[in-house]
Amino acid sequence: MIELHPEEKIPLYEQLYHALADEIRSGQRAPGTALPGRRTMAAQQGVSINTVDSAYQMLAAEGLAEARPRSGFYVQKTYGMLHNRQVRSTPVSAVQEPAVPAPRYDLSTGSIDTDLFPARSWGRIQKEMLYQRPELLQRGEMQGDEALRLQIARYLSAYRGVDCTPEQIVIGAGIEYLLGCLAHLFAGSTAAVENPGYSRTRAVLQNNGIPCRLVDIDQEGLSAEALEESGANLCYLTPSHHFPTGVTMPAPRRAQILAWAAAQPGRYILEDDYDSEFRFDTRPLPSLQGMAGPDGPVVYLTTFSKSLAPGIRIACMVLPRNLLARYRQDFAVYANTVGRFDQQTLAEFMAGGYFTRHLARMRLVYKRRMEAFAAALRCQLPGVTLGSVHSGLHFLLTLSGAGGETAMVEAAAREGVRLRGLREYYLARPEYCPPDTVVAGYSALKEEDIPAVAAALARAWIG
Amino acid sequence: MIELHPEEKIPLYEQLYHALADEIRSGQRAPGTALPGRRTMAAQQGVSINTVDSAYQMLAAEGLAEARPRSGFYVQKTYGMLHNRQVRSTPVSAVQEPAVPAPRYDLSTGSIDTDLFPARSWGRIQKEMLYQRPELLQRGEMQGDEALRLQIARYLSAYRGVDCTPEQIVIGAGIEYLLGCLAHLFAGSTAAVENPGYSRTRAVLQNNGIPCRLVDIDQEGLSAEALEESGANLCYLTPSHHFPTGVTMPAPRRAQILAWAAAQPGRYILEDDYDSEFRFDTRPLPSLQGMAGPDGPVVYLTTFSKSLAPGIRIACMVLPRNLLARYRQDFAVYANTVGRFDQQTLAEFMAGGYFTRHLARMRLVYKRRMEAFAAALRCQLPGVTLGSVHSGLHFLLTLSGAGGETAMVEAAAREGVRLRGLREYYLARPEYCPPDTVVAGYSALKEEDIPAVAAALARAWIG
Repeated sequence: MIELHPEEKIPLYEQLYHALADEIRSGQRAPGTALPGRRTMAAQQGVSINTVDSAYQMLAAEGLAEARPRSGFYVQKTYGMLHNRQVRSTPVSAVQEPAVPAPRYDLSTGSIDTDLFPARSWGRIQKEMLYQRPELLQRGEMQGDEALRLQIARYLSAYRGVDCTPEQIVIGAGIEYLLGCLAHLFAGSTAAVENPGYSRTRAVLQNNGIPCRLVDIDQEGLSAEALEESGANLCYLTPSHHFPTGVTMPAPRRAQILAWAAAQPGRYILEDDYDSEFRFDTRPLPSLQGMAGPDGPVVYLTTFSKSLAPGIRIACMVLPRNLLARYRQDFAVYANTVGRFDQQTLAEFMAGGYFTRHLARMRLVYKRRMEAFAAALRCQLPGVTLGSVHSGLHFLLTLSGAGGETAMVEAAAREGVRLRGLREYYLARPEYCPPDTVVAGYSALKEEDIPAVAAALARAWIG
Repeated sequence: MIELHPEEKIPLYEQLYHALADEIRSGQRAPGTALPGRRTMAAQQGVSINTVDSAYQMLAAEGLAEARPRSGFYVQKTYGMLHNRQVRSTPVSAVQEPAVPAPRYDLSTGSIDTDLFPARSWGRIQKEMLYQRPELLQRGEMQGDEALRLQIARYLSAYRGVDCTPEQIVIGAGIEYLLGCLAHLFAGSTAAVENPGYSRTRAVLQNNGIPCRLVDIDQEGLSAEALEESGANLCYLTPSHHFPTGVTMPAPRRAQILAWAAAQPGRYILEDDYDSEFRFDTRPLPSLQGMAGPDGPVVYLTTFSKSLAPGIRIACMVLPRNLLARYRQDFAVYANTVGRFDQQTLAEFMAGGYFTRHLARMRLVYKRRMEAFAAALRCQLPGVTLGSVHSGLHFLLTLSGAGGETAMVEAAAREGVRLRGLREYYLARPEYCPPDTVVAGYSALKEEDIPAVAAALARAWIG
C-alpha cells in the first residue's frame, strides 16, 4: 500500500513516482505486469488523475514503465542481465580499507588549523554565487575564470613580485595536475629535482614521462654548478623556502640559476612558491619569475592549500608568454579542473579584501604558535636545536643523542605524536642527512596542546 | 589621518593594521622610518595600547614592519627589486581576450538548463558541510572520499549494471584528468578512437603519449573487425550512446568487442558512459563493464557534467581490480582533484535520494522538450529527418537540399542560433559524413523559445 504525504514539500506526483519506482526495482511489481489504470489509482490514492499521469510519465521516461497505446502503462520488461546484476551485486558492501588510528597530536606538514578558516565569509560568498549566478553552472574558460585570474595576477604582483598578466595564469585542481600539463609542454626534457625534496614532484614528472635527476642542495639551496652537471634542461625549485629544510635561496644564487637557464634555449625553471605567505621575520625575496620577467624561462607555481585549505583544491601556474600559444592549442578541448563556484568564491574573497586579511590573521596566529611551541620544546628538551623557525609552517628539530631519527619517530608515535623524520625526504643519498632530525609542523597544532606535545616528546626522547 | 570605525564588525586592531599596511605599501610611510610609539598611536586613535600592539605585530608578521629592541617598530626596508616591480607592474591590466558575441539560442551539446539545477537542496547540504564538518578542509583520500565512492558504486550498480566495489572507484575533476591518469597506466599502448567522435579524447590521449588510430563506426557502432585491423590494444568507446551520432551498440556487438579484449592480455576498453542517464524510450543496456565483471578488461568512465552541471567538476572511473595495485602505487602521493566539500555534498545529495529524484525530474522535462522541439522542427522544416531522438540530449538533424552543412551552420548563426555540423566531429575521412546534417542539442533550450528557434532555422534554411 502506497502512502502519500500531502504535508511534505515533495510534490505528490513525485512521491507517487518514487513509491512505484521502488516497487518496480524491488520486484514487487513484476516486469510486464500492468500498472493500475490512472482513474483507479487516482481514486485509491485520493489524488487527481493528472498527478497519477505525471508519475507514470516519469516512470516511462526513466524506462521503468512503458506506455502501450489504448492499453495503459506496464512495468518495463527489463533486460535479464541488468536484473541479475542488480540482484547479485546488491547491496554493494562498504569494504573498509584498514583504518589507521589517528594520532592524538598531528605534527605533519600537510594539515591546517581548521579553526582559522573564515567559514562565515567564505560561506556567505559561496551562497550568493549559488543563488545569484546560475551561469556558473555552465562550463567556464579553459585556463580558469577571468575574474579569478585577474585577482591572482594582482595578488602575485603585489606580494610576490610576479610579473604577469591574467592571460598567463592557469588555474588547476592542485600542483600535481598542473605539473602533469607542464610535463606535456616539456615532453622530451630531463628534470633536476631537489634532494632532499618533495617525492610528489618526482612521482608526477616521472609518471608523465619526464626522467628526473636528483640534485643535492647545499646551505643556499640548489647550485648552478650541480644543475649544470646534472645534464637536465628543466629544474624544479622551491627557492623561497626549500622543502623541507627551509633554506631560502639568496639573491646571488638566484641570479646564477637564472643565468643557467638563459644559457641555452629550452632550459626552464619550475618555481614552486608553495608557502611563501608565511614569513615571520622579514619580507620574502620576490619570486624568480619576477626577476626573469614575463618572457623569461620561469614557470611560477603556487597553491592555495596552505593559505585557504588543502581540502579546497585550487592551485595556479604562471606560464611564460612564449609558451602560451602552444599551451592553448594543445589544451584547447580541456575543461578547467576547478569548479566554477569555488573559482568565483575565491575571486570575490580576494577582491573584497578577505584574503589578505585572512593571511594577516593567520600569520599572527602562526607566529605566536611557532614561538610558543619553540619555547616549550627548548624548555622540555634540553640541547634541542630548531632550524628554519622564521618561515613556513614547520621547522627542523634536532636532538643529538636521541637514538636516531627512526627511533625518534617511533617513540613519538607511541606517545601519540605524528611527525616524520628528515631522512624520509631524501630521495637519494640519505647518508648526507643530518642525524637525529625530524620535521615538526605546527600548522594543525592547537595552542592549548603545546605543553602536552612538548611533554610527550620529552617522555618519548629523554625518558 | 587614519579613521577607525568601531561600529564595523572588523576588530579595531585589524582596521588599524590595514590602514597602516596600505600606507606602507603605497610609500606614504617610507622604508626605515619609525612608526609612532604605541602609547602615542593609542592616544591619537582613541584605542587601547593592546590594540595598537596587535596591529604592529601583524605588520611585523607580514614583514611590513620590524621590531627593534628597546626602540619600537620601523617600516621594513623592503627589497628594492620588489619595490620596483610593484611600481612597474601596478596595476595589472585586465587585458580582455576577444569577446565572442553570445548567440541568442544555444543548440550546442555541452550546456544544461540551469533552471533545473536543484540549487536549494544543493546549497543547503553544502552549507551544512561547511559549518558542521571542518575536517573537510583537510586533505582527503587519494581516490576520493569513501562516502562518495560508496554512493557512486551503489548508483552505478543499480542503474548501470556496473559490477564494482567502492575501492575500484576513482573520483576526478573531469574526464580529461582521468584519461590522463589512464594514459600513464596504459603507457606504451596504442588507442583506437571512434570516428566520428570526441576530439577531446584523442587530444588528451595524444598529449599524454598514447598514439590514436581513428576507427570508423558503422550502424552498430565500432566493429570488432575494424578494431582488430587497427592494431590498437586500447579502445575508447561510447557504447550506450555514441557521440555524436547517438548509435546504441547492440548486445551481440558488445559481446564481440569484449571477445576482442579477452583475446590478448593487455587489451582494454575505456567505456565512456557520458550521458546514459537520459533515455526516453527504454531502459538503456547495462554497461559493458557489468558484462565483463570487476576483473574484466573494461575501465568504466562517467561524468556528472550532464546529470548535475558542467561547472561542478566531478567525474569518476571504475578500474578493473587487477589495475588497482599499480594505480595506488603510482598515484600514492597525489591529492584528489575534487574539493572535499563538493565531494561530500554530492555524497549526501545521492544518499538523501535527491540525485535520483533530480534525474527523474530532468528526464521528464527533457523528454517533453525533445518532443516539443522535434514537433516544431517537423512542422517548420518540411522534409527534415531527425535521428536518435530517444536518447541523450541532442539529435541529428538532416535537411536535404539546404545547401550543405557549412552553409547551414553559417545561416543558422546569422539567425542567432548556435549549432555545429556533424562533419566537425569527423576526425578523419569526412567524406563518409552524411550530407546536410547538423547536431542539435536541446539541453539548454528554453521551452518558450522552441517556436522561435524553429522559425529562425526555417528562415535560415528554406528562406
